[in-house]
Amino acid sequence: MRYGIGIDAGGTATRAVMLDEMGTCIGYGRAGAGNPTSAGTELATSNQVKAARAAIGASGIAPELVMLTLAGGLGNDQAPIMSKALSAVGIETDVRVAGDVMSAYFSATADPTGYLVLSGTGAISAQIVDGELAGLTDGLGWLLGDEGSGFWIGRRVVRAVAADLESRGPSTSLTGLVLAEVRNESSPDEDVRRPEVWHLMRRVYGQRPVECANFAPLALRAAAGGDAVARQILDDAATALLTSCASLVADDEHPVVLAGGLLHDGSPLSNALKTRYPGRCLRAHDGTAGAALLALRALGVTADSGSLNRIHETLAPLIG
Amino acid sequence: MRYGIGIDAGGTATRAVMLDEMGTCIGYGRAGAGNPTSAGTELATSNQVKAARAAIGASGIAPELVMLTLAGGLGNDQAPIMSKALSAVGIETDVRVAGDVMSAYFSATADPTGYLVLSGTGAISAQIVDGELAGLTDGLGWLLGDEGSGFWIGRRVVRAVAADLESRGPSTSLTGLVLAEVRNESSPDEDVRRPEVWHLMRRVYGQRPVECANFAPLALRAAAGGDAVARQILDDAATALLTSCASLVADDEHPVVLAGGLLHDGSPLSNALKTRYPGRCLRAHDGTAGAALLALRALGVTADSGSLNRIHETLAPLIG
Repeated sequence: MRYGIGIDAGGTATRAVMLDEMGTCIGYGRAGAGNPTSAGTELATSNQVKAARAAIGASGIAPELVMLTLAGGLGNDQAPIMSKALSAVGIETDVRVAGDVMSAYFSATADPTGYLVLSGTGAISAQIVDGELAGLTDGLGWLLGDEGSGFWIGRRVVRAVAADLESRGPSTSLTGLVLAEVRNESSPDEDVRRPEVWHLMRRVYGQRPVECANFAPLALRAAAGGDAVARQILDDAATALLTSCASLVADDEHPVVLAGGLLHDGSPLSNALKTRYPGRCLRAHDGTAGAALLALRALGVTADSGSLNRIHETLAPLIG
Repeated sequence: MRYGIGIDAGGTATRAVMLDEMGTCIGYGRAGAGNPTSAGTELATSNQVKAARAAIGASGIAPELVMLTLAGGLGNDQAPIMSKALSAVGIETDVRVAGDVMSAYFSATADPTGYLVLSGTGAISAQIVDGELAGLTDGLGWLLGDEGSGFWIGRRVVRAVAADLESRGPSTSLTGLVLAEVRNESSPDEDVRRPEVWHLMRRVYGQRPVECANFAPLALRAAAGGDAVARQILDDAATALLTSCASLVADDEHPVVLAGGLLHDGSPLSNALKTRYPGRCLRAHDGTAGAALLALRALGVTADSGSLNRIHETLAPLIG
């Protein structure tokens, strides 16, 4: 029997799973932040090794291969670094690196060809052909792109609230929802502006820009309550995601995997994609499962829907 | 004869002018950054004092009053600080503080009631009633507002270029203009993205967000050449400025002063405002002249259009 490890190294947690060539998961491990860009190479590598060792655990099995999946497309330097770090703790193995769009895609389907649309804090679309990343659209960050993302929606939300407060935009229930979250901030004793405008400014500029994404759920809530401004923001976000995705989708059959917090089942954005691509939208699962399927593919063994089902069935009890 | 000093304390330079109650400027001084928020209180105050002492110069006249104009509305703490700093160098005088929207407004008109629309890096509209600031709209910064500003336009420019490069937006001549400014940046050896997309990302995220305003002039250039994308961006910017302004303008007679680099004579944004407010748009001049007029008003002496003309006529030769 041959064995591999799949690792999903994220900004806050790193999860690793050891599996056999049939897709049966036999060990699982977890560690802290594993993204070299945000956590630094040393800490991220240390956490990747820690998670891998925990996945090997008591079995003591030497994995033939480690598939490390990481945010962004700049992670290729990490393969030799991780390989050396594993070697230093007595694990001699081949390390491969792939983007987290790949682990998200293969968490939902074993089809080697298809598409991914992700809308979380950021937004990106990807095309996968024969198991390889073949195209990316957007994912360009909060200033240059991320059209239809949580940040994109949250930015529109706070701007709509500012415009409402200053009577230069339509009245919206978003104002009450946002102000409930930015209260108790001090404001200048006297000024020609409404104090609420100062409260909003202090909050928005007192946090990192991307944290505007935290206001996106308020758009979903207000839209569900019938607010026209919130509905327009979400309609525009759906249009932006569909436009990004449409620049990649080149067939009528392969799956379209929906990933990220804004594309959960039942969200207006998710519904818009399902209407556009009927019968082929799948919801992404745990990225660790996708990393595991990528490990099987890298081992060169069969990695079909049966394998993916087995991964999901045997991974769930390990996570507990 | 009574004397006052007007100071325009900006982010890069501080200019001070000594004038008599008739509006005749008799001394001028210049120093470095004078904005406490960006330069720090100590350096800003030191430069404000330096400019004021230079304006007093060889005349040795003690000003009855110093009118200090500063960006933003948070400068009220600066009056006692500046008063103490002047006292420490033997200048006992009354210090008043006003926002730079006031100095911009009174650089163009002595009418104590009217409006200001500014579009530079940021954008703000103001209402002035009986010489006092009576209303502000926008000026909320690049993330929350600044609708129709240089940043707002520049952000739209780089996003339009990204969309063009990724074939998810219309083709635009902005792409060539922007790429000419971001060339020679390195890109990963192999990637599924076009290298130009990397070049753009490195530039945009390698600078402070507000520096996107530097791309705004390219929109003016492309629009002048007939580019539809650039024209749409400028049309939207004009609409945003008109919307902000319209939330304050409450009469059909008082002046509308146009300030900031995007509202120079002949710009499409300036033309849109002149069409909306025919016969009453005035272009702002040097903020030092406005600070001088505010000093006259604070002295309680006549500050009419004759005074403003005298300020402009006698200030110009001093600046040289």
